Amino acid sequence: MNCCTSGQCEAMSQPEVESFIFGCELSWKTKSYTFKVDEEDECEHCLSLHTISLGEGVKDECNIVEVIARNHNDEEIAVPVANLKLSCQPMVNMDCFELQPPVTFRLKTGVGPVHIAGRHIIVSSSHLNQSDDEAQVEKEIVPIKPANKKERTQ
Amino acid sequence: MNCCTSGQCEAMSQPEVESFIFGCELSWKTKSYTFKVDEEDECEHCLSLHTISLGEGVKDECNIVEVIARNHNDEEIAVPVANLKLSCQPMVNMDCFELQPPVTFRLKTGVGPVHIAGRHIIVSSSHLNQSDDEAQVEKEIVPIKPANKKERTQ
Amino acid sequence: MNCCTSGQCEAMSQPEVESFIFGCELSWKTKSYTFKVDEEDECEHCLSLHTISLGEGVKDECNIVEVIARNHNDEEIAVPVANLKLSCQPMVNMDCFELQPPVTFRLKTGVGPVHIAGRHIIVSSSHLNQSDDEAQVEKEIVPIKPANKKERTQ
Amino acid sequence: MNCCTSGQCEAMSQPEVESFIFGCELSWKTKSYTFKVDEEDECEHCLSLHTISLGEGVKDECNIVEVIARNHNDEEIAVPVANLKLSCQPMVNMDCFELQPPVTFRLKTGVGPVHIAGRHIIVSSSHLNQSDDEAQVEKEIVPIKPANKKERTQ
Amino acid sequence: MNCCTSGQCEAMSQPEVESFIFGCELSWKTKSYTFKVDEEDECEHCLSLHTISLGEGVKDECNIVEVIARNHNDEEIAVPVANLKLSCQPMVNMDCFELQPPVTFRLKTGVGPVHIAGRHIIVSSSHLNQSDDEAQVEKEIVPIKPANKKERTQ
Repeated sequence: MNCCTSGQCEAMSQPEVESFIFGCELSWKTKSYTFKVDEEDECEHCLSLHTISLGEGVKDECNIVEVIARNHNDEEIAVPVANLKLSCQPMVNMDCFELQPPVTFRLKTGVGPVHIAGRHIIVSSSHLNQSDDEAQVEKEIVPIKPANKKERTQ
Repeated sequence: MNCCTSGQCEAMSQPEVESFIFGCELSWKTKSYTFKVDEEDECEHCLSLHTISLGEGVKDECNIVEVIARNHNDEEIAVPVANLKLSCQPMVNMDCFELQPPVTFRLKTGVGPVHIAGRHIIVSSSHLNQSDDEAQVEKEIVPIKPANKKERTQ
Repeated sequence: MNCCTSGQCEAMSQPEVESFIFGCELSWKTKSYTFKVDEEDECEHCLSLHTISLGEGVKDECNIVEVIARNHNDEEIAVPVANLKLSCQPMVNMDCFELQPPVTFRLKTGVGPVHIAGRHIIVSSSHLNQSDDEAQVEKEIVPIKPANKKERTQ
Repeated sequence: MNCCTSGQCEAMSQPEVESFIFGCELSWKTKSYTFKVDEEDECEHCLSLHTISLGEGVKDECNIVEVIARNHNDEEIAVPVANLKLSCQPMVNMDCFELQPPVTFRLKTGVGPVHIAGRHIIVSSSHLNQSDDEAQVEKEIVPIKPANKKERTQ
Repeated sequence: MNCCTSGQCEAMSQPEVESFIFGCELSWKTKSYTFKVDEEDECEHCLSLHTISLGEGVKDECNIVEVIARNHNDEEIAVPVANLKLSCQPMVNMDCFELQPPVTFRLKTGVGPVHIAGRHIIVSSSHLNQSDDEAQVEKEIVPIKPANKKERTQ
């Protein structure tokens, strides 16, 4: 099955993965939006960005959106990911840019409104926390996953 | 096999997945379109958006398309996903933005016509509702799928 | 292996999948092109669209390309998939929009020339028509594919 | 692992797949470039196109790039795949358009310079030429691949 | 699971793969940036490029970004991968162009600022250096991976 055919359809046969629409608006009134989840939540979450587009009444100026998240040195960094201007490029496809919470979107330049659209993907914990028995079976027959799995701590 | 090579071709060897062309037009005459399926239908359905393009006779104004669907809190939200303007960006590739029915497309700004094109993907229920015997086999040899599958209720 | 890395390379190790370049030109002289295959052919075929671009000598007008194919109700529908205009967007990436033959491309608006480029993907029938013995083995060890496979009739 | 996350990373754990940067320049001085490999080479090769962009000093005219390769009837055909113009679209993302050598890129219209960028992917022959013993094992436990594999002759 | 749904989510259930945001800025002040990793590091690293966008205060001129890396002949080559101009295309989606360190980004033409955004993906060495016992198991039940794996030396 391919990446185009099978997103949520594939999810249909994988009860542990769910996908919901996500959207937020940035403007001079609300310059930033933080996507975060309850740390007690045993599920894993991620955001897959699909499009960023200019909203109604936007001025013909550069609207630069940056993402604030942690790099591999665990430092918080701000990375500009989009620059949209009404007269030449009012929207862009973000190619499923995937981000893990907590992540903040900020309108660095311009007054918007700018709309971010994507999907909020949830992997249920039952998939992540397999019982020892199950892990044992897995160890035996799917050696691609090494036996001594360490928890992902990012 | 890769995401580009193998979409429907892959489907060819997966009898439980079918894919059909999907299209709808939004304009001042028909401002919204709802994609929904018969709830009695035992198959699972999803829409994979490929392109949104301006139609014949469109004016040079912003045409903003929004998607109305449920977020992970089960609230209905409207998310602008495209802003097209004839003189700068008459169409966009939507990067296989996948949505599950029921979902509504609405022309929030502009009078169109705007065309939404994509694929309607169907996973047959025989794939989803395996008999207990089959589930038992699966439990034993594919431990990636945990034994206690709960039905996906979204 | 990922979708970018592995297209034809992956095909290399999957002798049953082959991929060839595909192209057609639409203009006022040849308004439509139908991609179809010999029904006697035991292979399965699909088209993966990669780019649509304006050709030499095109006028600065909207060139709208539509795809004519069957929807999930087995009705023939025409879906506009691209709108290109020389002065603002002379080409577009079609994101591997995959279509199954028979499918017709038609220049709905404009006089072109417009070029459609992609790949013609073929899955050999030996892969599709497994012997009963093989199907039996599959039933036993890959329960993801249910036992009572019905032939795909689309 | 997904198509975005895992390209070369996935390759990391698949020693038989390697990926290198690829680039070529087309202009009035060098109108075409052919990507081919030594036929004695036991590895399989493919090109995955990522971007085509206009170079320094380009004129504001249409630069049309065509790909010359063999279609499924083994006829050599020329397919225009990109049309770039400085004042409206100086570059394009080619969505991993994958091509097998020998393939020629030609600047059909315009004087360039135009830059083609992508990846050269190599699957080592040890992966392709499995011993009979290995093939036997595969037959038994991965019935998705039918027993009577015919060599891919494209 | 598909390429859109499952990036980091998939990573969630694959403890050996981690993904972090990556960003760098090129301008007349800092014309180039090299992404490299400690050679002692036993993990494998790659960069997946998502977007390149013009920054605040950029002039309306061509900003050409090139990638400097090694080709399959182990020669260092410079490949232009993007050409952005404020008045027509202030940003581009790079379609997950994946590169292995060491790799240098250089602003070949223009004074910027230009922002490169993507993901830094890390595959932990425990996944890469399996014990002999594990490799033995793998040999037996996943014959797709041939027994005599040679280390990837690129």
